[in-house]
Amino acid sequence: MDLLNTIISNIKTINKEWYSIAQQRLDNLTKPQGSLGRLEEFARRLVAITENTMPVLDKKVIFTFAGDHGVAEEGVSAFPKEVTRQMVFNFLNCGAGINVLARHAGAEVVVVDIGVDYDWGLSQDLRAKRSEAVESGLSPYGPTAFILKKVISGTRNMRKGPAMTRQDAEQCINVGIELAIEYAQKGYKIFGTGEMGIANTTPSSAIAAVLTDKPVSEITGRGTGIGDEVLRNKIRVIEDAISLNKPNPLDPLDVLAKVGGAEIGGIAGITIGAAANRIPVVIDGFISTAGALIAYCIEPKTEDYMFAAHNSVEIGHKAMLEKMGLKPILDLNLRLGEGTGAALAMLMIEAGLKIYKEMATFGEARVSNEIQN
Amino acid sequence: MDLLNTIISNIKTINKEWYSIAQQRLDNLTKPQGSLGRLEEFARRLVAITENTMPVLDKKVIFTFAGDHGVAEEGVSAFPKEVTRQMVFNFLNCGAGINVLARHAGAEVVVVDIGVDYDWGLSQDLRAKRSEAVESGLSPYGPTAFILKKVISGTRNMRKGPAMTRQDAEQCINVGIELAIEYAQKGYKIFGTGEMGIANTTPSSAIAAVLTDKPVSEITGRGTGIGDEVLRNKIRVIEDAISLNKPNPLDPLDVLAKVGGAEIGGIAGITIGAAANRIPVVIDGFISTAGALIAYCIEPKTEDYMFAAHNSVEIGHKAMLEKMGLKPILDLNLRLGEGTGAALAMLMIEAGLKIYKEMATFGEARVSNEIQN
Repeated sequence: MDLLNTIISNIKTINKEWYSIAQQRLDNLTKPQGSLGRLEEFARRLVAITENTMPVLDKKVIFTFAGDHGVAEEGVSAFPKEVTRQMVFNFLNCGAGINVLARHAGAEVVVVDIGVDYDWGLSQDLRAKRSEAVESGLSPYGPTAFILKKVISGTRNMRKGPAMTRQDAEQCINVGIELAIEYAQKGYKIFGTGEMGIANTTPSSAIAAVLTDKPVSEITGRGTGIGDEVLRNKIRVIEDAISLNKPNPLDPLDVLAKVGGAEIGGIAGITIGAAANRIPVVIDGFISTAGALIAYCIEPKTEDYMFAAHNSVEIGHKAMLEKMGLKPILDLNLRLGEGTGAALAMLMIEAGLKIYKEMATFGEARVSNEIQN
Repeated sequence: MDLLNTIISNIKTINKEWYSIAQQRLDNLTKPQGSLGRLEEFARRLVAITENTMPVLDKKVIFTFAGDHGVAEEGVSAFPKEVTRQMVFNFLNCGAGINVLARHAGAEVVVVDIGVDYDWGLSQDLRAKRSEAVESGLSPYGPTAFILKKVISGTRNMRKGPAMTRQDAEQCINVGIELAIEYAQKGYKIFGTGEMGIANTTPSSAIAAVLTDKPVSEITGRGTGIGDEVLRNKIRVIEDAISLNKPNPLDPLDVLAKVGGAEIGGIAGITIGAAANRIPVVIDGFISTAGALIAYCIEPKTEDYMFAAHNSVEIGHKAMLEKMGLKPILDLNLRLGEGTGAALAMLMIEAGLKIYKEMATFGEARVSNEIQN
């Protein structure tokens, strides 16, 4: 059996008895029952996911997968394609949104080149450059890990044919799975997903349309901020790509290969790997949710391990969340990606765990809990 | 001129030119313009409030005002009245929700007895007991400040007459103002509001009904979790109190005195004091918003300094926020109070500031920002 199928066979549905065990403690804390709303939900879920009455979230990591998109040549994005690699350098110099917000949340950032159309040269050189920047104080916040796992040098233009081969798509998922296993073994307790890839709302909308069975026009938004005419073109490009490639909605790997992207596959892999290792995974925004949806369609049990970070501005986001039954934690009009929403949501999930672990019970605090209804 | 009027005369509308100054920097950071949504709004507002292009939020404090309510004897709450003082002890032992979440947000908690119906004995004893708990490791998280500023020993039952005198109501506001001045002078950069007072959703609903001109039944919720019959009784009690006392909606001090509470007055005072000292103030949930609404009706310019922490489960919350034009930051089904939502929202506001201050610009990161629309 190959890696993907072996891992999938390891994913188990959550045992909901753990919810009752957690709720029993929550209901005994010095507060009206249920008054901490979704924070209590987060605590219950963490207990059930980890099968541990006192879960720990001391090591947090956000995986930011980077990949390029051949479809960028169709003029679907507001930014030129070289911004993908420029932003990878920005991540490594700790200057991007994800660096700032992951630091705020106490999470590490792991940048993964899974499909960038750029030759970084000898990776040793790049690492040396990084250490230099950190040592020289140019990057005062410590290193961001950079992992080279390039499966492809960008997808092909999906308007002209499949974005990648089925083998490459599976390999992208495997990269994510292997990283999940590695970071689980290193003791990381919660994962977040993120991405960078100019034009990648285009394949994400294509995936959303195919897997939720909605019209492309209802599921396609403005990405980094395109105008009306570019949006109309983007919709046409996605419609063309779907009608040319005919991705099979019952075969998520086929969808990923024909109208997806490398970073989306990596995110699907992290999600599957998290579930197999009983690790909660915080799904960022629109593109990450497309990756999570691929994972969900491969194995619906993965949903038990997902937290939807936020409600993206991208109009197709909601349909994907609804398909998986996920309710976003935050709603702050974000549309940056990179994992920024996941970092912020981790702060709320951790708040739920802290409430559960650190509040006094009625007995400990000698507070009356006789209720008069 | 008395303290309240002097302070009010110091409150200035925000100069919106600071928004443009902040936006200029935000638009030059390595992200699509506007893509960090409300985080950008928070940064703009902090710059304008503080009139500082590089605001600092290093010292944060949440004021949790405690007061009792004579109307509790009408059976409007699920919990007995002594829970107010029991919860104050719980705050001082760092066992309550607000202790946990303030710690998570890096904020200090200041508990203010402004109207609890309980004699704490010599305050020195209490303080000694606190230090003992901290030193013995029973309270491992350091002390919570306890400030005795008792104006009344609980309100009178507003179903039988005014909750307090106009003088007491003004004194409660003054306590809040004085604390705001004191903590501004101590260098605190952001305030949060919170409260504890069994039955205090009842006066808050009364205030909301009077000041938003909505029917009591549309604005009264289940508080700590009452059933249908108690809810019907609560609505009748509020309607009776309003028709008996006839609070004048054009005179917020009259409303606070007749159908309000001491802690609600303290919150109004902190809000007014924050605005006069150009300090952002994070308004927690339903009861805090009733206090903020009193402040707003005294001086609408206070709104410029407020952040609405979250969307409370209490049904009357929305009408008050709408009246002030505030949009809540979080929506996590919270209904605990104490300042818990304010603590969580501070984490998001701080995230906005960090993005603004710490992200690299396009120039610094050498990222292309030629946009094709």
